[in-house]
Amino acid sequence: MLGKVSYGGVTTPAGFRAASASGDIKGKKAERDDCGLICSDEPCEFAAVFTSNVVKAAPVLYDMEILKKGGKVSAVFANSGNANACTGADGYKNCQKIAEVYADGLEIKSESVLIASTGVIGVPLPVEKIIDLKDVLIDSLADDNGINFAKAIMTTDTTVKETAVCVETKAGLFTIGGCTKGAGMIAPSLATMLSFITTDALIDRKLLQLALNECVDVTFNRVTVDGDMSTNDTILLLANGMSGTKVDENNYEDFKAGLLDIMDYLARQIALDGEGASRMITIEVKNAANFEEAKLCASKIANSPLVKTMFAGCDPNWGRLMASAGASGAEFDPDKTDIYFNDMHYVSGGKIIDYSLEEKAYNIMQEMQYTITIDLHAGSSMTKFYTCDLTQDYIKINADYRS
Amino acid sequence: MLGKVSYGGVTTPAGFRAASASGDIKGKKAERDDCGLICSDEPCEFAAVFTSNVVKAAPVLYDMEILKKGGKVSAVFANSGNANACTGADGYKNCQKIAEVYADGLEIKSESVLIASTGVIGVPLPVEKIIDLKDVLIDSLADDNGINFAKAIMTTDTTVKETAVCVETKAGLFTIGGCTKGAGMIAPSLATMLSFITTDALIDRKLLQLALNECVDVTFNRVTVDGDMSTNDTILLLANGMSGTKVDENNYEDFKAGLLDIMDYLARQIALDGEGASRMITIEVKNAANFEEAKLCASKIANSPLVKTMFAGCDPNWGRLMASAGASGAEFDPDKTDIYFNDMHYVSGGKIIDYSLEEKAYNIMQEMQYTITIDLHAGSSMTKFYTCDLTQDYIKINADYRS
Repeated sequence: MLGKVSYGGVTTPAGFRAASASGDIKGKKAERDDCGLICSDEPCEFAAVFTSNVVKAAPVLYDMEILKKGGKVSAVFANSGNANACTGADGYKNCQKIAEVYADGLEIKSESVLIASTGVIGVPLPVEKIIDLKDVLIDSLADDNGINFAKAIMTTDTTVKETAVCVETKAGLFTIGGCTKGAGMIAPSLATMLSFITTDALIDRKLLQLALNECVDVTFNRVTVDGDMSTNDTILLLANGMSGTKVDENNYEDFKAGLLDIMDYLARQIALDGEGASRMITIEVKNAANFEEAKLCASKIANSPLVKTMFAGCDPNWGRLMASAGASGAEFDPDKTDIYFNDMHYVSGGKIIDYSLEEKAYNIMQEMQYTITIDLHAGSSMTKFYTCDLTQDYIKINADYRS
Repeated sequence: MLGKVSYGGVTTPAGFRAASASGDIKGKKAERDDCGLICSDEPCEFAAVFTSNVVKAAPVLYDMEILKKGGKVSAVFANSGNANACTGADGYKNCQKIAEVYADGLEIKSESVLIASTGVIGVPLPVEKIIDLKDVLIDSLADDNGINFAKAIMTTDTTVKETAVCVETKAGLFTIGGCTKGAGMIAPSLATMLSFITTDALIDRKLLQLALNECVDVTFNRVTVDGDMSTNDTILLLANGMSGTKVDENNYEDFKAGLLDIMDYLARQIALDGEGASRMITIEVKNAANFEEAKLCASKIANSPLVKTMFAGCDPNWGRLMASAGASGAEFDPDKTDIYFNDMHYVSGGKIIDYSLEEKAYNIMQEMQYTITIDLHAGSSMTKFYTCDLTQDYIKINADYRS
């Protein structure tokens, strides 16, 4: 692998262009861009992962239909400011209309256009505004516009989240780029509202979906901000083959490693930029009885409001970690449990080693990123979750979200 | 049933006395009472429900042993300020020591004394301070001291929570009284840190435990403040028989109704006094496919940070209710779902009936207590949960808890 391209994103792989524009989707005359378009010069194989929420937004239902049809796609339209969720039959019709209009402008079939939306639930999508943007968006498609697309899909995000990687394999080079929006309502599974990944690798659909599934499970599905799950969560992975480098069983692991690199980076950025969050904490559970219990335990700790407020206050209150692990459903002996803050051994056999360690633990908790490891001594399974602290700003953002 | 005794508590039933005193358990020279004692003139049958957390505090382990032995009990010692949890073998020995000293003072067997603690986890219990209080506590035992006992077990509670009821049955009268402390770390199951219920009914242990189990399931196990579960959760129910009224299969339902009345009141008080909470919301799920899914759905909504912050902001954002129900694991058709705010029909078939209803919904959300009903139209099972709003004060309390 050649390593990360510093300023890469969805337009870093060959043949992908993007654009953004302001459609005033929220109707508040905000000047920032809230609509984006990604377009590939060649039709793409694509793979996708969608929310498992029973309540699925119209664009999710729409893309699921496209995926089922099995054809290639060439473009993705995305908007922030309105989720087009809980909007009934009209919501779905609006997706069809957008696809038709943009396909017409791009001179492709309407089944070649995917749709993604994020924002407020239950408000009709102002579809005319989106249609009006067609020419502006299509005319401004450019191969250095990935960052502007990434900005257009932000809602309460405070940072743009994009990255790219160039992968070297025996069969040749290819590039993978991606961007995501995160912030609130982020929980396993699925940990992103909208994520778009592009690659110029030549890869068939089956292998593409396999790689996406395998990587999602250890990245986006391990991020939690507030334990909630959106109606709109969507990850789209498009492969246009324009690098000419073929990915098959011989170099699949290289492809997966590159994709994992992209997705792990994006997932961490989501946790770090959780609503109101001031720091990102990795919760690592070691030596659980089995993988399922490792996940239960790490997830419970990562989602506990008492633990997350303790992170906000930089209070090294290990008792809350013990209590949360104990409430998770994982089986273990509290009197054998060890806890580490980064590399510092803090709790041994279920008890603090020395109260003088509290100050050192406090200092670690001041850092922007740190790791807490819980060693259950109950088996040999391990896993990790990414979480963030729960601050007063989270409440402020979410109590006032629509105003 | 004769109805609620306005100012009743654990000393309302015949033959129960209580006391409280300040042991300075936290070592901060606070003046408030933090130790309490309940004593019965006659030995009691008793039933109990304890935390299901794998990490159990020493007093929980101690009381579980007493319960297993099957003998009667006459006294309960309780303290706030220190949970005696994650304190290892010394923690358990300290429970034995307290029981021995207080049993000696009361001239009863040490197995007749139960222990309950609440407060910070992982700090050794200052057992000498508790022993020093023996004479003060025993000398001040009085049959009108229930309220002082209830005050002594408070931690971040802002209100005293106690009540009593007199029950009339064909076999005669008896009284049930109770008090509880709640606040944070309250979640199914179990929804209280410490709860004490006394009765002068004459009832055998098997029936007593059955009634407690049945009532816990629909009261304390339906309260959630922050989805966390304590290491110390304990409900103790003591019956001394001193009313002379026998409870058997003929009037068991009367007993259960009285107990339910007490426990439902105490459980609601916990939700209403959730850490930082400004209001209590009942989440009612109707017409779920089965009881398990009704519980899943109500619990998910009641625990959702996005829903709870929306309650704090009085924002009638029904989309978050739909999204949360959809994420719960319950099966239903979003396009058939109805939502009510109190009696106001707000969402029909998964869509808001009229945007003009938002203002009415907003007004309902200003109330101290209101009910949100989700009708899933997927079956005929229903259940309800009590929850509270998630405010900036919750963060403040819990980020600073130990300072």
